[in-house]
Amino acid sequence: MRVLGIDPGTAITGYGLVDFDGELRLVHSGAILTPSGLALPQRLLLIHRELSELIQRYQPDAAAVEELFFSKNVRTAMSVGQARGVILLAAAQAGLPIYHYKPSEVKQAVAGYGAAAKPQMQEMVRLLLGLETVLSPDDVADAVAIAICHAHGAQWNQLLIDDGAPG
Amino acid sequence: MRVLGIDPGTAITGYGLVDFDGELRLVHSGAILTPSGLALPQRLLLIHRELSELIQRYQPDAAAVEELFFSKNVRTAMSVGQARGVILLAAAQAGLPIYHYKPSEVKQAVAGYGAAAKPQMQEMVRLLLGLETVLSPDDVADAVAIAICHAHGAQWNQLLIDDGAPG
Repeated sequence: MRVLGIDPGTAITGYGLVDFDGELRLVHSGAILTPSGLALPQRLLLIHRELSELIQRYQPDAAAVEELFFSKNVRTAMSVGQARGVILLAAAQAGLPIYHYKPSEVKQAVAGYGAAAKPQMQEMVRLLLGLETVLSPDDVADAVAIAICHAHGAQWNQLLIDDGAPG
Repeated sequence: MRVLGIDPGTAITGYGLVDFDGELRLVHSGAILTPSGLALPQRLLLIHRELSELIQRYQPDAAAVEELFFSKNVRTAMSVGQARGVILLAAAQAGLPIYHYKPSEVKQAVAGYGAAAKPQMQEMVRLLLGLETVLSPDDVADAVAIAICHAHGAQWNQLLIDDGAPG
């Protein structure tokens, strides 16, 4: 099973592709960066296009995205929401099932502790994937951690994403 | 000039197409409704598809969208943001220039008063377009008001949308 983990953002969207067949293997990871001088619709166009190409190229079986992070402020939520919208769209257009996980679930699945700190998480991701150095920036490490969380099957019974919030 | 005004939302996205050549004329208006039982990515798929078809069919010269509404709560902002993301994407994919207006700018342009109440706005939209009854629901009336605001050229020097928020 190949899982695409995504950490959405307008300026930087981290992604990580992880194979799991009893063992975990990092296939590819990176970040979609959009220039701050570019108009927002063009930035969204870039994110959607690059993610669609990534899905086309690596053919994951599922996508995993971090759940809405409610403690952030309204402006950030709107900005992340816009990026998240085109990311979910790209996955849906490719027919990918999409799963979502709370930050605490990702930490629990990766570090065995729902309140694990960032360096602890990065080190666990490194160990689990047998990498020589920790992944950076944070957005990439977070995306890979989400993919591992899904691959670990902690939440197999997770429903397809639907926050049900009024729009 | 034909303007497509949009009021984004996951559950309901209002839209209105307005022609302006000295006089205003309502070409078409309506709402994209998505069932609450549908998973979020599927709802975003619906919104993106219907809006793309609308643009293809009516060939507007520009799109106008209400600016981020910061007073709403974080959950609503994330939900509206996701819908707004796929809407801006559809417009950008069609090569449409996109303009954004603050709610107070829309009220000023349509009712001549930046703090106009909703019934006042609906009535002004009705009068300006020579309609027999006010447009409903609110989402449709709001979308048409945004299109009128842009058509009225109150903000011709408006920059292309770019909120520049960190993502």
